[in-house]
Amino acid sequence: MSALKGACIIAQSGGPTSVINASAYGCIKTALENENITAVYGSLNGIKGVLNDNLIDMSKEDPAELALMKYTPSSILGSCRYKLKDASVDDTDYKCILETFKKYGVRYFFYNGGNDSMDTCNKISKYMLEHDYDCRVMGIPKTIDNDLAGTDHCPGYPSAAKYIATSMMEIYHDARVYDIGTITVVEIMGRNAGWLTAAAALATEKGCGPDLIYCPENAFEVDAFVERVKGIYEKEGKCIIAVSEGIRDGKGKYISEYGNDLSNAKDGFGHAQLGGLAAYLAGVLKAKTDAKVRGIELSLLQRCAAHCASQTDIEESFNAGRIAVEKAVEGMTDRMVGYLRSSDENGNYVCEYGVFDLTGVANTEKKIPADWFNETKDGLNEKYIAYALPLIQGETQMVKEDGLPRFTRLKKIKPTV
Amino acid sequence: MSALKGACIIAQSGGPTSVINASAYGCIKTALENENITAVYGSLNGIKGVLNDNLIDMSKEDPAELALMKYTPSSILGSCRYKLKDASVDDTDYKCILETFKKYGVRYFFYNGGNDSMDTCNKISKYMLEHDYDCRVMGIPKTIDNDLAGTDHCPGYPSAAKYIATSMMEIYHDARVYDIGTITVVEIMGRNAGWLTAAAALATEKGCGPDLIYCPENAFEVDAFVERVKGIYEKEGKCIIAVSEGIRDGKGKYISEYGNDLSNAKDGFGHAQLGGLAAYLAGVLKAKTDAKVRGIELSLLQRCAAHCASQTDIEESFNAGRIAVEKAVEGMTDRMVGYLRSSDENGNYVCEYGVFDLTGVANTEKKIPADWFNETKDGLNEKYIAYALPLIQGETQMVKEDGLPRFTRLKKIKPTV
Repeated sequence: MSALKGACIIAQSGGPTSVINASAYGCIKTALENENITAVYGSLNGIKGVLNDNLIDMSKEDPAELALMKYTPSSILGSCRYKLKDASVDDTDYKCILETFKKYGVRYFFYNGGNDSMDTCNKISKYMLEHDYDCRVMGIPKTIDNDLAGTDHCPGYPSAAKYIATSMMEIYHDARVYDIGTITVVEIMGRNAGWLTAAAALATEKGCGPDLIYCPENAFEVDAFVERVKGIYEKEGKCIIAVSEGIRDGKGKYISEYGNDLSNAKDGFGHAQLGGLAAYLAGVLKAKTDAKVRGIELSLLQRCAAHCASQTDIEESFNAGRIAVEKAVEGMTDRMVGYLRSSDENGNYVCEYGVFDLTGVANTEKKIPADWFNETKDGLNEKYIAYALPLIQGETQMVKEDGLPRFTRLKKIKPTV
Repeated sequence: MSALKGACIIAQSGGPTSVINASAYGCIKTALENENITAVYGSLNGIKGVLNDNLIDMSKEDPAELALMKYTPSSILGSCRYKLKDASVDDTDYKCILETFKKYGVRYFFYNGGNDSMDTCNKISKYMLEHDYDCRVMGIPKTIDNDLAGTDHCPGYPSAAKYIATSMMEIYHDARVYDIGTITVVEIMGRNAGWLTAAAALATEKGCGPDLIYCPENAFEVDAFVERVKGIYEKEGKCIIAVSEGIRDGKGKYISEYGNDLSNAKDGFGHAQLGGLAAYLAGVLKAKTDAKVRGIELSLLQRCAAHCASQTDIEESFNAGRIAVEKAVEGMTDRMVGYLRSSDENGNYVCEYGVFDLTGVANTEKKIPADWFNETKDGLNEKYIAYALPLIQGETQMVKEDGLPRFTRLKKIKPTV
């Protein structure tokens, strides 16, 4: 394909990660420097910014502030959870998107988000193709959940994993300090895939992590769990457990639903809102043992603790954004950038970049392979460790000011079109 | 006083901090190098190790592993919450302590802990004096609560403050990412003094912190709070609130007690176990607004997140341990080492080291001065910022291995006495 000249829009969507802005920066910086891209717009609050004509002109930002995006957590352009209807059912949104694209001369659209965002990319790409509007659409993945199909791992996961493993090592030291018996239950994010919870195994590998790790990939039975904890507690006087918020019993019912008066709130995509599992399991263990039992939720710091980000993740995420622009300018469309695991001549981890069909990526969820768990399904084995360890290497080069993070401050100036 | 030759014991007590081991290392290293100190013993699980003859020989440890103590959170010698009875009521424990001291030729006792530990120091010191046993007793403070009298600030507080301020800045970015209205309530530790919660003001000072900060120093009225939050939420579409777990109403009742079926568990010192406040306030706000409301507990990572420790705190804590040994060898006893704030010729913060009477320190709690709060008592003013900012400077020099903290591993070998 030949060079396509025009403006580009970058938008961010879904839940925050520590490095989603590193990807956006890789995209913005590369686009600003590319001669085929005539203007670089940021869409505020994901696709909603396109729908509401709420764009900002990235060329008006101070380059030094843009550079700080690499180390600033959460979506600096704002996010949304907005699911486009199928165009065959209701094409109102698509008409509106096309109108905005035409108004600003947009020929490149980059969407930086998770599964749902890749679905949005795919729908927009197909609509533009059907309406003979030449626009190249590329997905730049992000999700701490690490559940996107195709790519070896997802931008954002390594930093969340590093934070979880580090925090578990620190909690281990804290939880074992007294000579009285203690049981600690740590609840970790992850609705359907256990990748985040599995990261606790990196702490165990270092000799200071949880005794037991439970992921949603395996059915969780409360009675068997209590017996397993009691066995360790009676022998060691202590037990630390990492559980994924999404663990379910054999019937597929969330364990958290058993003990919690869950508000039946659903998020914009119809997912149940989970939580309170650690407190529930702590209550069960309190009733069944004489231990001091503590339930801890790592909560949203898992996804935004940029101060503990993996520099490997930051650099890879930046490159994912850069490559999305490069591939689009080369002529590619309707693809998601992803990672391919490779190694150098010494067998050391190397990340290569590839592209994946959006159709295959959207709305599928990659789980932990069954043979990465131990036999009793309450821990991860060396296959997971070998997978995860290279990803968490390197400390963030975050700029500090007065001993605190210096996060980016954008002016967010509207384009004069 | 003349040189006193003999062995020393170092023990740690109370809740963990990120830097309590930095103090212990300062004490152990200095003692190992001092010619008047003939042996250096660690007492496992605080004073209980002395009572149960459960000591370890610090000279048997690898010096490189000892050096890693500086960056290892929580009490590496183990902790306890054990309150000595008054000797006049029951002197059993004191007799036992004296017996252990005699058995090992102990002439120096260093206790590294909070208010309760300073009380223990004071009692032991008095007993030894009354029984003509020449033993120098020094307290090495630690408490994230920052509530010890006399000292300008407490070892451990700056690191907790740095973690809280950093996390609040990250939560701010996370909580403001969607364009739908959100209210976020973050619960921070602190039973009677608001020092930890106040640290959230450092994030506000940097432009990304909570809108409202509530400390136990000021009475908290739920109705007024709801109105204040609603006012901000209606104007901004967002509101972030930091609350101390220990906030109470005008009648002195903990706010957390209103909404929680608090287990009536008390810790070893008769303090009520608090918690669940964020969830309670989130529930109240959900009922009174149309916002998406989230309650977050920073939980015990506040006190053990060594990966985000203040290097200033680490160095000062190390020096506190060092100076305890030096002063004791010089002849001092029955004192706590503490900090005096000073400044250099350019007006920059300098920490000087002093000693304080244990009697004045034990069982008193230093609160935030009333004039460090804003007029509406829902924020801190520039006096707090000027106080706290120098303390959180400098990034930890923690050793990493495979992208994770390399914490110390002690052999804990019993002495051959």
